[in-house]
Amino acid sequence: MQNITIIGTTSWGMTLACRLAEKGLKVNLWTRTPSEAETLRRDGPNPQRFPETALPPQINITGDAAEAMEKSSAMLLVVPSPTMRQNISCVAGYLTDKTLVISAAKGLEVDSRKRMSEVIAEEINPEFQRNIAVLSGPNLALEIRRHLPAAAVVAATNTGTARKAQRLLSCPNFCVFTNTDVIGVELGGALKNIIALGAGIADGLGYGDNAKAAFITRGLTEITALGTALGANPLTFSGLAGLGDIITTCASPLSRNHFVGVELAKGRKLTEIRGAMSEVAEGINTTLVVSDLARGLGIEMPITERIFRILYENADCREMADELMGANAGHELSGRRWDLHSRFRGSERATPTA
Amino acid sequence: MQNITIIGTTSWGMTLACRLAEKGLKVNLWTRTPSEAETLRRDGPNPQRFPETALPPQINITGDAAEAMEKSSAMLLVVPSPTMRQNISCVAGYLTDKTLVISAAKGLEVDSRKRMSEVIAEEINPEFQRNIAVLSGPNLALEIRRHLPAAAVVAATNTGTARKAQRLLSCPNFCVFTNTDVIGVELGGALKNIIALGAGIADGLGYGDNAKAAFITRGLTEITALGTALGANPLTFSGLAGLGDIITTCASPLSRNHFVGVELAKGRKLTEIRGAMSEVAEGINTTLVVSDLARGLGIEMPITERIFRILYENADCREMADELMGANAGHELSGRRWDLHSRFRGSERATPTA
Repeated sequence: MQNITIIGTTSWGMTLACRLAEKGLKVNLWTRTPSEAETLRRDGPNPQRFPETALPPQINITGDAAEAMEKSSAMLLVVPSPTMRQNISCVAGYLTDKTLVISAAKGLEVDSRKRMSEVIAEEINPEFQRNIAVLSGPNLALEIRRHLPAAAVVAATNTGTARKAQRLLSCPNFCVFTNTDVIGVELGGALKNIIALGAGIADGLGYGDNAKAAFITRGLTEITALGTALGANPLTFSGLAGLGDIITTCASPLSRNHFVGVELAKGRKLTEIRGAMSEVAEGINTTLVVSDLARGLGIEMPITERIFRILYENADCREMADELMGANAGHELSGRRWDLHSRFRGSERATPTA
Repeated sequence: MQNITIIGTTSWGMTLACRLAEKGLKVNLWTRTPSEAETLRRDGPNPQRFPETALPPQINITGDAAEAMEKSSAMLLVVPSPTMRQNISCVAGYLTDKTLVISAAKGLEVDSRKRMSEVIAEEINPEFQRNIAVLSGPNLALEIRRHLPAAAVVAATNTGTARKAQRLLSCPNFCVFTNTDVIGVELGGALKNIIALGAGIADGLGYGDNAKAAFITRGLTEITALGTALGANPLTFSGLAGLGDIITTCASPLSRNHFVGVELAKGRKLTEIRGAMSEVAEGINTTLVVSDLARGLGIEMPITERIFRILYENADCREMADELMGANAGHELSGRRWDLHSRFRGSERATPTA
């Protein structure tokens, strides 16, 4: 029986633990402290954050890193991105040249602006870097816990690593694809949260399905532009980790980022919204990092820029939305994606209309 | 004041009539018979099909084609696609070399398998063909009547024609883009209805947002493959007339095609569902035409094929959905779109997973 380790008691982390334990794997779930492990063993997960399901008894919950990593053939890091570096540094010493290292975090590190696989690579033995994979896609945890059908993608530069991760993570009704574009899959998962914030704002303003669809369409183009400039394959953004994840996140009341957008549109302050949430909405930090990256690269991201102003400069949601509408009449997207391959710029300009 | 003619008392036709009349245009709304015009003038539109709004009194409702087309600088054909040929043939004689001819129908002609602009081109003076444009995008009529923000795209091979149509149709909160890829814009609008049927089925089965997002993502790839083989620019499918329209249609209870899918998943028969609907769900015919086209071109369309079997061969919705899930593990979409440029084939094959 294969031993695996899950780092992180997020709802996604515990969901993966449940599904993989059901599949017959020996799952170790690592908590940050022994007392957290003790509480989790005794009381189970907080039902607000993790409703409907108990953790199967065969999951070994432990705060002891050595115990969690013993004979482990794979480690899944399912932590909020701000804590990734700290988490990987705690367990890096237990890796072998055979241990698969899979990141399931969908965010960027604020200070370094790095992707999670880059953060992990910096903290582990360079010889183990070929074992790094990333998991992304339209994966609302609660639905997957309910065994509803879903698809995901694992990416690794090493195709053997991707295949191993695919075999490990595939479960009944959880269909895992491989991809070699790690940059694209990671950026898709991170950047889509910016669009989800905006879609939440559109919903909060009551703008309807037409506006939301137009917004998502243009949002996808915008994040594809940045991703391409950062080395991603633009096509990855049309796949599960891009478009797929955007659709789910923008549609679902289960999405934290979408929720933040809805609340912002109601006029609530960011600090207040954040204070009331039990898990991190990654889009808030991602917007900060991405605005910065876009400015540095000279890439126009009109949507991201306005969400940045809403989040960090108290700009008015309705005003920002109206600005986007006004700036948006022109020649359609066709041909636009080609520009992305060199450096996307200017093709979005408005031409005068009646 | 510019005179324009709307052909078709569909809810989208009457919506465009309202918005353009509000903008100050002199709108003639042509009905199939004088008695229909009489009823519509007297009683207003059927509130079930056209809720919330009355037709502004300045709209001239007439069953007389000569009157409807008098001094008309633009004709908008907003009819179900099965009646397009008959409708255009009734009014073709009133066109001049200056009259803009805009199709807003989102379907294909069943017998000929032709797009609406091709049908129109066959029925009018060849010298006027450069005046043909098509309108598409995520445009739920009711939301646009409510003045909620929306974006659309007009396409014409002649850019001057596209610009003219853009100026004509742009209204406050209705933002119109131009495109020169007529084939892509028309096929996007038509083919998206197949995906909407499927998304309705997924919703009817209670499969959740993860499954729906994965389905839409793969559906978009599939219709892009066919579109490209038929001469469209694949990028158009990532724009408003493709992705944008898909998102709206798959999300909204206002979509007729989505509704048909939901009812099919409940086990209702197609004839029964159709009988209860007051307007055409274009996706039903489109699935028939597209399955045929795909077979002829040797293009794999696993989703379309299964929706065809549900619609026309009484296949079970759940069984078809499970087949799609089972057939779907493999290498992700990255790189796939490139294949489309030659002839998309085989890159979707499943590889064995655990």
